[in-house]
Amino acid sequence: MTKDKLNLAMLCDFYELTMGNGYFNCGMRDRITYFDVFFRRVPDGGGFAIAAGLEQVVEYVKDLHYNDEDIEYLRSRNLFSEEFLEYLSTFRFTGDIWAVPEGTPVFPGEPLMVVRAKAIEAQLLETYVLMTFNHQSLIATKASRICRAANGRAVLEFGSRRSHGIDAAVSGARAAYIGGCAGTACTVADQLYGVKAGGTMAHSWVQMFESEYEAFKTYCEIYPHNATLLVDTYNSLHSGVPNAIRVFNEVLKPLGITKCGIRFDSGDLAYLTRTARKMLDEAGWTECAITCSNSLDEFVIADLLHQGAEIDVFGVGERLITARSEPVFGGVYKLVAVEDKEGHIKPRIKISENIAKITNPHFKKLYRFYANDTGKALADYLCLYDEVVDDSSTMEIFDPEATWKRKEVYDFTAKELLVPIFQKGELVYSLPSLEEVRAYCAHELDTLWDEVKRFDNPHNYYVDLSQKLWDIKNDLLMRFGKARRSGGKNEG
Amino acid sequence: MTKDKLNLAMLCDFYELTMGNGYFNCGMRDRITYFDVFFRRVPDGGGFAIAAGLEQVVEYVKDLHYNDEDIEYLRSRNLFSEEFLEYLSTFRFTGDIWAVPEGTPVFPGEPLMVVRAKAIEAQLLETYVLMTFNHQSLIATKASRICRAANGRAVLEFGSRRSHGIDAAVSGARAAYIGGCAGTACTVADQLYGVKAGGTMAHSWVQMFESEYEAFKTYCEIYPHNATLLVDTYNSLHSGVPNAIRVFNEVLKPLGITKCGIRFDSGDLAYLTRTARKMLDEAGWTECAITCSNSLDEFVIADLLHQGAEIDVFGVGERLITARSEPVFGGVYKLVAVEDKEGHIKPRIKISENIAKITNPHFKKLYRFYANDTGKALADYLCLYDEVVDDSSTMEIFDPEATWKRKEVYDFTAKELLVPIFQKGELVYSLPSLEEVRAYCAHELDTLWDEVKRFDNPHNYYVDLSQKLWDIKNDLLMRFGKARRSGGKNEG
Repeated sequence: MTKDKLNLAMLCDFYELTMGNGYFNCGMRDRITYFDVFFRRVPDGGGFAIAAGLEQVVEYVKDLHYNDEDIEYLRSRNLFSEEFLEYLSTFRFTGDIWAVPEGTPVFPGEPLMVVRAKAIEAQLLETYVLMTFNHQSLIATKASRICRAANGRAVLEFGSRRSHGIDAAVSGARAAYIGGCAGTACTVADQLYGVKAGGTMAHSWVQMFESEYEAFKTYCEIYPHNATLLVDTYNSLHSGVPNAIRVFNEVLKPLGITKCGIRFDSGDLAYLTRTARKMLDEAGWTECAITCSNSLDEFVIADLLHQGAEIDVFGVGERLITARSEPVFGGVYKLVAVEDKEGHIKPRIKISENIAKITNPHFKKLYRFYANDTGKALADYLCLYDEVVDDSSTMEIFDPEATWKRKEVYDFTAKELLVPIFQKGELVYSLPSLEEVRAYCAHELDTLWDEVKRFDNPHNYYVDLSQKLWDIKNDLLMRFGKARRSGGKNEG
Repeated sequence: MTKDKLNLAMLCDFYELTMGNGYFNCGMRDRITYFDVFFRRVPDGGGFAIAAGLEQVVEYVKDLHYNDEDIEYLRSRNLFSEEFLEYLSTFRFTGDIWAVPEGTPVFPGEPLMVVRAKAIEAQLLETYVLMTFNHQSLIATKASRICRAANGRAVLEFGSRRSHGIDAAVSGARAAYIGGCAGTACTVADQLYGVKAGGTMAHSWVQMFESEYEAFKTYCEIYPHNATLLVDTYNSLHSGVPNAIRVFNEVLKPLGITKCGIRFDSGDLAYLTRTARKMLDEAGWTECAITCSNSLDEFVIADLLHQGAEIDVFGVGERLITARSEPVFGGVYKLVAVEDKEGHIKPRIKISENIAKITNPHFKKLYRFYANDTGKALADYLCLYDEVVDDSSTMEIFDPEATWKRKEVYDFTAKELLVPIFQKGELVYSLPSLEEVRAYCAHELDTLWDEVKRFDNPHNYYVDLSQKLWDIKNDLLMRFGKARRSGGKNEG
């Protein structure tokens, strides 16, 4: 990628530009629109996702502009009016954005971000915003699963070489860190984001020397405080581990160093690590950490631990950085309301034959209810922008798909999840550090019941609608039934 | 990603730096090494892959350097000697690189790239080179499958919003174009690489107007020559298609325009398109193209066409840009030889309990044999760097895993696939244009028998070894058997 030439504003689907030019030229350029970013299902059949990518969205929106070369390119397409190109040449985003903070566990159907802006402005954000949320939320969610499987042991992100390019590697390492990884192999992710990068040797190091012993010895002499030796180049248990112990004894012991490590990158990791642990302990290297890599994911890790593998650190590569088991996070960007000329907000709904694909219309607020006794999250609650939840009294909430399923909530605290990010184009949000995001994610994960965190068949967490919102949605669906028969007259 | 700060040299696994510093400080910095890039299996069980990404690798190698901030960051890690940091601050790649041209169909086990360089230099390339080949070859290979399923119909790449970040979207669109796609929705891929970008409207356009008819009419008036209307916002057959026809009649017909289009993004595409085709033809809009999108891949497309769907253009999103069915291309970077102090090339082999994971040692050449009568590729042939194939006489080749399977080849042309890219650090390769790469790919695909191009259970194409290479490999394996018992003394 000729990065230095790449203006991210141009990373948009071409239809955003044709629509933008269209709104501009048919008198709709200043119509205020409301778009929601949301997703419909959690990858891997999980119970929740981790929202990530907001920082990169903020950078993008702040910087959004079209330079001369962009205008020149667009002019060459012979589709856009000169007035529109002129408009783009001084374009800045002037709308409002709300979003859930990075690291928040989120659920299908609820907005992760709400954009209120002139039609053109809102439309031009679509692809980049979706791409960024989709990618980083995908990886943060996968990392969270893998880290939960590791059950307190460190998980390192090792996947750059199998990632889908530069940003996939670097932002991927960032998202993995939010989701709980302890570090990465990706050097630049440390330099840019402070995701601690580490690594010691590949098989090629061992192969460069006349013997494995010599390779290990040389390494330990150069890096006595960072000596994790890759022991599976020839024969892990008959050569690798004995050579490692010999070198630890010869090089580290005289220096009084007790911390060191070995790594396995192949073979039966349960058997190898149990045996190696015994060999290391018997030789007095009880503080030698055992790292394993080789096509790991949450299921392999859970299996290994179940089988008594003695692993302290997991290095997870391709199955994390590509979210191999389900590499698509399906966030969408949908129009939910339009203001009329008098500034009244008119809800819009996107209908689908598939009931689950019908959108929640209107400009909305999102609350999470926490029980005061346990601190656990009880339900999320979507309501109209001008509704206010009073958590000092008892409330009745209901399942929007089975409205007879009703539940009283009391002794709870309601927290608004969508916080203001941009107001009239100005950034009003103070971005937390990556460490803060990671800590917040861990804290919020603790508010979820274990049942919601199961890998398979998790408990279905409630995302309820207020009565007012439900009524409006139902009314739009009813009116749509008529419109459908009358040939697409839009009353929604 | 703070792109403007990102130096791609730092997109390396940290172990490359620890090994680099290690080689530097133990007197091995100038040892000449040979590394192969190759892969072990084709994603999706296909018969071949399409090599892609070389242009980006070339840009990376040309630009490879470490700036002051990088050195500062590395110094802060307290692992590297000042001499090594000094060395990095003036680092340039000074080695040799050979590679197969982009767009070449390639097979497991054969080198896509060979690096001959000082140990440090070769090692530092590993992650970026692998990432780039893996990513672009993955997408080019998937695109090739999807385009073959479309059987001559146009396939457009629509996946940016579900891609794994900036580079995944942009380089992904580039790779998809190499693999056969006709265009993309990704605007910047057009601007940077000339991958023709197009697009017209989203559902939001239709929802912005009081009626679907008004939305279509406005669009056609603004873009009479680019009028592809999205017809599935309300009801495709009762509202969308009739409104489209009405607007084509009212707006396009008076202008004498006969080319236009409709797009379906949901529903039963076989039924909808057959019915729509009839409606359009009966209304005289025989040149109206039908585009379909919605979770398409090679299998869905083949099925739709088998069921008589009337589709002219396929828009393929997430399943192409993430290679959803198998999102990992497993290219590896392995040491295959080392020069001793006298400049003699000593082969190296990486052993594995898994026979398929054993590498082909030594500095090698790769030939492809084409039959002179049919023009079809017969086999690939790996031999030592100093062997020369004489295609004017008959040759006997054999299966390296079943050496009794022998075959005479005659009346053939042998082509060397690995071409010089860098010599002593200088770029000696003239990069073809993207159009040339795409045309070359299509041409080379035509040299493969249909049996090799099947989606499932393809015919196994031969990648044979010369007798000399086979002997060396076998000898190393035998010696390894001894070394394994004697505790890792490296004789390979």
